[in-house]
Amino acid sequence: MSYGADSVIHPESSPGNLRADWGTAPPGACAELAPARTSRGKRDEELILPINSSLSVTLHQDQLKTTTTAAISRDFTEDRIWLNGREEDMGHPRLQACLREIRRLARKRRSDGHEDPLPLSLSYKVHVASENNFPTAAGLASSAAGYACLAYTLARVYGVDSDLSEVARRGSGSACRSLYGGFVEWQMGERPDGKDSVACQVAPESHWPELRVLILVVSAERKPMGSTAGMQTSVETSALLKFRAEALVPPRMAEMTRCIRERNFQAFGQLTMKDSNQFHATCLDTFPPISYLSDTSRRIIQLVHRFNAHHGQTKVAYTFDAGPNAVVFTLDDTVAEFVAAVRHSFPPESNGDKFLKGLPVEPVLLSDELKAVLGMDPVPGSIRYIIATQVGPGPQVLDDPGAHLLGPDGLPKPAA
Amino acid sequence: MSYGADSVIHPESSPGNLRADWGTAPPGACAELAPARTSRGKRDEELILPINSSLSVTLHQDQLKTTTTAAISRDFTEDRIWLNGREEDMGHPRLQACLREIRRLARKRRSDGHEDPLPLSLSYKVHVASENNFPTAAGLASSAAGYACLAYTLARVYGVDSDLSEVARRGSGSACRSLYGGFVEWQMGERPDGKDSVACQVAPESHWPELRVLILVVSAERKPMGSTAGMQTSVETSALLKFRAEALVPPRMAEMTRCIRERNFQAFGQLTMKDSNQFHATCLDTFPPISYLSDTSRRIIQLVHRFNAHHGQTKVAYTFDAGPNAVVFTLDDTVAEFVAAVRHSFPPESNGDKFLKGLPVEPVLLSDELKAVLGMDPVPGSIRYIIATQVGPGPQVLDDPGAHLLGPDGLPKPAA
Repeated sequence: MSYGADSVIHPESSPGNLRADWGTAPPGACAELAPARTSRGKRDEELILPINSSLSVTLHQDQLKTTTTAAISRDFTEDRIWLNGREEDMGHPRLQACLREIRRLARKRRSDGHEDPLPLSLSYKVHVASENNFPTAAGLASSAAGYACLAYTLARVYGVDSDLSEVARRGSGSACRSLYGGFVEWQMGERPDGKDSVACQVAPESHWPELRVLILVVSAERKPMGSTAGMQTSVETSALLKFRAEALVPPRMAEMTRCIRERNFQAFGQLTMKDSNQFHATCLDTFPPISYLSDTSRRIIQLVHRFNAHHGQTKVAYTFDAGPNAVVFTLDDTVAEFVAAVRHSFPPESNGDKFLKGLPVEPVLLSDELKAVLGMDPVPGSIRYIIATQVGPGPQVLDDPGAHLLGPDGLPKPAA
Repeated sequence: MSYGADSVIHPESSPGNLRADWGTAPPGACAELAPARTSRGKRDEELILPINSSLSVTLHQDQLKTTTTAAISRDFTEDRIWLNGREEDMGHPRLQACLREIRRLARKRRSDGHEDPLPLSLSYKVHVASENNFPTAAGLASSAAGYACLAYTLARVYGVDSDLSEVARRGSGSACRSLYGGFVEWQMGERPDGKDSVACQVAPESHWPELRVLILVVSAERKPMGSTAGMQTSVETSALLKFRAEALVPPRMAEMTRCIRERNFQAFGQLTMKDSNQFHATCLDTFPPISYLSDTSRRIIQLVHRFNAHHGQTKVAYTFDAGPNAVVFTLDDTVAEFVAAVRHSFPPESNGDKFLKGLPVEPVLLSDELKAVLGMDPVPGSIRYIIATQVGPGPQVLDDPGAHLLGPDGLPKPAA
């Protein structure tokens, strides 16, 4: 699959004046460092403004990717969207907010006197198709990747080239970070209208080439505690969350930025783990409480601490988002040993050959000393698979027409 | 078993000048309301001083009890202790601290001019035997009950009648609360020497006769996260714990005392749950993190919230100590329905007839509405059994010689 830098028009393949665009965006939010958790910690629910700044690592599209195609045409009778091949309700308030915002930016651009290279009516209806190559709603930030890709693709279709933070943010708060590659900060901002609540890159994807990311996908377990009910209430009910956002996160953000700039893995890893734990602590302090970590998550935490204790230094670090899956940071020289440790403690149950996905990892033997330190009863099957990946770039335009999700008729192509 | 109010001497049955005493103490700390968690939150490790005040309910000895027998004799050659029939090391620093403290109080009493009714040498060695009728080290505060009972029994043997808070506290912080029945506050105190860190009764056991306590003993699961390593570090590593202790606990203690005085179950229950959640949040914020709640604990939390939602009010409340077992508070008119709900969601696997222990509970049928609200897949066997109990009195002296754990030779009686 090749990425280009320009948008593509296919008037010849359209049922009318069709403009189609394709983007692919990384699920950046799944590797957060100082979670803002807008969905649970919003200072403004309508505008999706967070109660603290946050930082995330954008993961590489070679392993985790959303692909989106958008098209407009005077022949379309309504706005429509297909997610992973299934039509969904375009009336969803967050989708509508994104559409409204991108059309507003396009109008503004036109009224500012920019010449529109593609003078299409802004009143044309839009068709959108989007697909993830990773499990949706599994705590892998599919909505962040999805809305970032949507914002990016719609911007191409409508010829908008201004900052898209607000468009993406209105869909899913953390999506604004996924608009950039590398290490990205979402500055919470201060203005009530949210105009200064934007993403900016702290360091590009090339900054720390040794850094690796392992996603430990935990087997589907009974969901022990519903989150929806509590999601709206954290800000109101958790005194710890308020204290954390006001007093603890600001110095941590500064420290994290420094760790990244200096490529100091020890400090980076420790702060990442502490911040993940503290975020989940504030979830538990919500009433009714929210708990995303499962027993398997906790065993992974224990494994990481024992692995580090064995080495006498922080060689591996975990972070957990809104689900039981672990995102593990390490350096390239440690990947093979840690994957072997995971395999030792969580032996694959049936799909041994598909246990490791993504970047290739050499099999290595664990030392007896490390095995003794890990010392856990193996829990077969509780980790479904590992995705090995690394830091990646922001959204890209797809030049390959074969990758388009909508056909010349503006409808999803039949699955290959 | 009958309880008396005086100590018993058996010179005739002793191998020398044997003085034996028997106490039974309740595991008060297992139903905490605003946990102080000295073991994890000590401001002074040697003196066992907490970083915040706390409150507990003393459970009834008819269901949960420690029994202790102590004896001194000039013929004993060393201090010895048997716990649940097995000899343990009396050199344990905490046991030594209790012994040292009780002997100090006895010397002080003598030097203050009190006539000792039993002028035995303070240099005599002591034998102690202690038994729990509930699982040790299962998060049911066996050490709190044990040290309270030990302090109380030693005080009888040595003729000490002053406040025993310090003796008990030196063994296990929360043990000082178990010296009283009913609702007991452990005032953190301010003095560096800990002399004002004492327990006092907020309301006697007769204050709230409708209150019931259900202990949901969770089946042995793989312990997901070691606690020992982290226990010493909470105060140093958790900024949330510090904030909680300083800013949040003091007003909560006042509110909790008011709820109890007014027998306001709704407010009492909500605060109990919030405080339990917040304590466990600070455990998670410790580095490395501590997690006492298991997936089963979280399912119990969910069950309670759904049960309350169904009734439109807080009829049941949970609290968790340093383990996965739940302590559930409710009123007598709700016990039967809630036990049925637990049985519905966690059907007993094999010991159906032994699933419910303690106070009798009428079997009732759940309404279809409630079943629908609970809506969880049953998880057979994950709750081992329920102990139904209520608020109880403080330590008692046992008059029945048949209940003594040491024989006339000062050694543990053979098991009956």
